[in-house]
Amino acid sequence: MESPSEKHHWNPDEVRKNAHKAVDWVVDYLEGIESRRVYSNVEPGQIFSDLPEKAPMAGETFDEILQDMDQLVMPGLTHWQHPSWFAFFNANTSGPSLAADILSSGLAVQGMLWQTSPACTEVETRMMDWLLDLLGLPQEFHSSGEGGGVIQDTASSATLCALIAARERASGFDVDRNGVDKKMTVYASGQTHSSIEKSVRIAGLGSEQFRTIPTDGKLRIDVGAFEKQVQMDLEAGCLPTMAVATVGTTATTAVDQVKEMAAVCQRYSIWLHVDSAHAGTAAIVPEMRWIHEGVQEADSFTFNPHKWMFVGFDCNAFWVKDKKTLVKSLSVLPEYLRNAATESGNVIDYRDWHIPLGRRFRALKLWFVMRSYGAQGLKELIAEHLEWAQWFENQVLQDSNWRITHLRTMNLVCVAHNSGNEQTEKIAELINEQGEMSVTSTLVEGERIIRFCFGGTQTRFEHVKAAYERLRELG
Amino acid sequence: MESPSEKHHWNPDEVRKNAHKAVDWVVDYLEGIESRRVYSNVEPGQIFSDLPEKAPMAGETFDEILQDMDQLVMPGLTHWQHPSWFAFFNANTSGPSLAADILSSGLAVQGMLWQTSPACTEVETRMMDWLLDLLGLPQEFHSSGEGGGVIQDTASSATLCALIAARERASGFDVDRNGVDKKMTVYASGQTHSSIEKSVRIAGLGSEQFRTIPTDGKLRIDVGAFEKQVQMDLEAGCLPTMAVATVGTTATTAVDQVKEMAAVCQRYSIWLHVDSAHAGTAAIVPEMRWIHEGVQEADSFTFNPHKWMFVGFDCNAFWVKDKKTLVKSLSVLPEYLRNAATESGNVIDYRDWHIPLGRRFRALKLWFVMRSYGAQGLKELIAEHLEWAQWFENQVLQDSNWRITHLRTMNLVCVAHNSGNEQTEKIAELINEQGEMSVTSTLVEGERIIRFCFGGTQTRFEHVKAAYERLRELG
Repeated sequence: MESPSEKHHWNPDEVRKNAHKAVDWVVDYLEGIESRRVYSNVEPGQIFSDLPEKAPMAGETFDEILQDMDQLVMPGLTHWQHPSWFAFFNANTSGPSLAADILSSGLAVQGMLWQTSPACTEVETRMMDWLLDLLGLPQEFHSSGEGGGVIQDTASSATLCALIAARERASGFDVDRNGVDKKMTVYASGQTHSSIEKSVRIAGLGSEQFRTIPTDGKLRIDVGAFEKQVQMDLEAGCLPTMAVATVGTTATTAVDQVKEMAAVCQRYSIWLHVDSAHAGTAAIVPEMRWIHEGVQEADSFTFNPHKWMFVGFDCNAFWVKDKKTLVKSLSVLPEYLRNAATESGNVIDYRDWHIPLGRRFRALKLWFVMRSYGAQGLKELIAEHLEWAQWFENQVLQDSNWRITHLRTMNLVCVAHNSGNEQTEKIAELINEQGEMSVTSTLVEGERIIRFCFGGTQTRFEHVKAAYERLRELG
Repeated sequence: MESPSEKHHWNPDEVRKNAHKAVDWVVDYLEGIESRRVYSNVEPGQIFSDLPEKAPMAGETFDEILQDMDQLVMPGLTHWQHPSWFAFFNANTSGPSLAADILSSGLAVQGMLWQTSPACTEVETRMMDWLLDLLGLPQEFHSSGEGGGVIQDTASSATLCALIAARERASGFDVDRNGVDKKMTVYASGQTHSSIEKSVRIAGLGSEQFRTIPTDGKLRIDVGAFEKQVQMDLEAGCLPTMAVATVGTTATTAVDQVKEMAAVCQRYSIWLHVDSAHAGTAAIVPEMRWIHEGVQEADSFTFNPHKWMFVGFDCNAFWVKDKKTLVKSLSVLPEYLRNAATESGNVIDYRDWHIPLGRRFRALKLWFVMRSYGAQGLKELIAEHLEWAQWFENQVLQDSNWRITHLRTMNLVCVAHNSGNEQTEKIAELINEQGEMSVTSTLVEGERIIRFCFGGTQTRFEHVKAAYERLRELG
């Protein structure tokens, strides 16, 4: 008689057959993706109610599951890999990333400690160094010195870890032991990502201690106003703890002046964290390196290869200049994790660099992507995206119905209809409802804008042209 | 002339060819896994130095990358999917999980808001309900009422979110705004997972406010001592905020008395979080449901399908009884995420249920696994693991050199050599050095033990028998 483990697990032949089916399903999907609406128009609750209320008692075949995938789930998906995805920022994947993820899923190793899978740690350390070089980032973050990098799930988590380290440095590691006991203030412009405020709340500082600094005409943080606020806070007995410079804000990709912010931060011993989540990838192109001017003065830096660099989610890259402070802030060593390698001090245990304990082998995605494209290939691709954005911008500049609302710094073009907010919003809604492409509309300083972000793996120039053609028609 | 995007991206045929190669690589790996050492014996720094210092300038072929994978990376891997993996707890994957992950990687949708991919949210909500039913967990956590579930990366993150919600409920949402301003205390036994203390530190409460409660003879929290500590803290002006009941401690799978802890928590309005990270899966077997007795009185509950339930990492399941408190504690709504669906209040935006903003389609892994195995298949598999553990325990009980050190509650057997700690540790080291199987040794109340956990996807009874045979010989 077969034992349950012989009976119920797919045997290797079944794994092979079905995983191949899954690959074919994915490639067929990508080949046919243009025939799908970008945004799903499903009603809330539809997908939920189409699914049975309980798991089946008996096992089902893979073909049955794939069939339900097509019939029940697909109508409710929004297609982020669609070539006419111009909404939010991209969340790209690519062939090499998919292949790497298959290996990572299959190996299913845990890299919480060096000892629990040494290669998972060491490939990651090397990849973080490769990325520094690829982006022309300062050697202060390189693993060979006091600094180092780690893969996190998202920039939200990276920012939280930066804040925890900043909080401990500012308090002399007192908060870690005794809890928050004074007003620790955090600074960023009103254009910063919502994850900054979220981190301030999670870390127990309280959102009242999050100082929203005004911006200048280019939607960059007003550095003078920032310093003034720091001085006021010091006078009021607060402890200025961290400032966040945003390179490429979410709404318009405005670029804060990192160097000027760093000067203020150094004067008052404030941790400077640079959030370049989307924009970071642009620095692969040497002409774009200006966006990171001054980053060598920052204490931490983060960007998301899983946005624009063809690495599938999740893969955030996070560096600190002083790894000891980060590790001391996040390390708890129970008896069951003790081991000789850790105690030797010669290895990295990445569990101490972030919130989760377990971690999968995500560095493979970076390795496969950087090797498959090569530094030159990545550079040419990003340069092409920037050219598309420039082309699109030029078309709008010649269009009497539309205008460019904000300085274009990279691959995002912000437009508004000349008839005002209402018309702009109506057209944005119409574009998304029609389903052939997607955009995000948002309100910036009272002005309704439509954002076009050009950076998709599947996107080609024809899609960019079609996007402008549609915009022109709707104008 | 080819544009960069035509030139550098793998075309669909290349994606298909190489992703199929990746699948074959994985299945070949799993078929040959027994010929590998479980623990890598690589020296620190070896893998790092074998990799080039920089990314290549020109792109490389997939075959070149796979070759380096085999030659450079594999010697540094520890094989968590090895059938003779008995160390830590399992971190299983399975064929259906792999197939689901391929779809998830290929679709690469972002489920941060309902609107950004409705099916990603609604399949998840349904799967969390399925899991409740599968484990016989209380309906108080079901999405149809005030409760609900969400997938997190790890139990560490789930516990942190529980603590944030607890902190806000206890403070009347004051900490979120004004920061921690009094001693908020958290309670768990000394056998609890290190992530509890880590959460207390991250949340700004300070590790001094983490109260380690003594355990009874079964390594369960001493509920009387817990209540006494709460009373002392109240007298000292502290605010008792959260208690954690551990169902299946890391060292020995001891099971705290949830029901008795809940009674204390209710008396003093303390948030009760139940951490059943590894053990939760056992409740698929009706005879094991006793481990969750009293969970209906808890405020939150978490377990890891990515440990013992054949779902690949990362897939933690986390439920709360009052979703409004959790969401209110973690929600920040910037302008660019506003949308009609969110404002209608009819949809779930899972970004407000955890720390990250972005999220991949992890619910597919749960869907594929529960459907492929069926509830009955999963039940039979877990029951078989429990039988293996019982068999192993019986062998040890009859062995004059070894003894069972702790009550076996599920699939973990804790043993020690009769000659004492030194001999036990020596044998544990020898087992791992020999490389044919892996174990974890740890110190519990001064006693060195070797832990054998039986729950691998690839494990069959023959591996369990071989494990005892080796133990007997080394005895």
